[in-house]
Amino acid sequence: MPAARTRPVNPADCAADPAGPPLARVDAEQLARLFKALSDPTRLQILSVIEASTTGEACVCDLTEPFSMTQPAISHHLRTLVDAGLLNRDKRGSWAWYSLVPDRVAFVRDLLPGSASQRAAA
Amino acid sequence: MPAARTRPVNPADCAADPAGPPLARVDAEQLARLFKALSDPTRLQILSVIEASTTGEACVCDLTEPFSMTQPAISHHLRTLVDAGLLNRDKRGSWAWYSLVPDRVAFVRDLLPGSASQRAAA
Repeated sequence: MPAARTRPVNPADCAADPAGPPLARVDAEQLARLFKALSDPTRLQILSVIEASTTGEACVCDLTEPFSMTQPAISHHLRTLVDAGLLNRDKRGSWAWYSLVPDRVAFVRDLLPGSASQRAAA
Repeated sequence: MPAARTRPVNPADCAADPAGPPLARVDAEQLARLFKALSDPTRLQILSVIEASTTGEACVCDLTEPFSMTQPAISHHLRTLVDAGLLNRDKRGSWAWYSLVPDRVAFVRDLLPGSASQRAAA
């Protein structure tokens, strides 16, 4: 096997740092969990509804009709978004209300086409 | 059942637009596929290696050792990132070299803790 196949670049030019990747495994695992929560189209649409809401929040009852889904199915998606640290849950009376976690508002707005920040930049 | 359980808010305050969620289903599905590609810690670390590389690219041979993975396993992750529109693949001689798709450089840098843009902001 020619040398070029085992080490095609000068070691000084190698892309990989001998100390390991710049992103530590523990950080990569945390970030991957966040993206897993975002890897579902219904959850992205739920975030877009909450982001665009004039009150900044929504309850399950707001979401079952536009998504043609049962309340348990919507609740499951909402719980996944809460567990991922994207939504806050506030129980008031018979219903729970969901809003974007303040630290994540800018992150979510930057991700979603048609969100407030992207409308402002257009 | 009290009225508050079936419609707890004034319809004018309802979070969901009767025309449907602001994020269209086709856009949500496309975005969900992107986040699915990012929902794996090894793929995030591979992106961080390429983002931090002085040459802006890496080949499979750069990545097998730091990740203690076989070349086919690394190649599978790289193919997923190419299919998601995050990496370009450039075959030169016996090896393929991978770099961030120019349109996605800022997106990836904003996502990764410790990336160039986050180092600049720190």
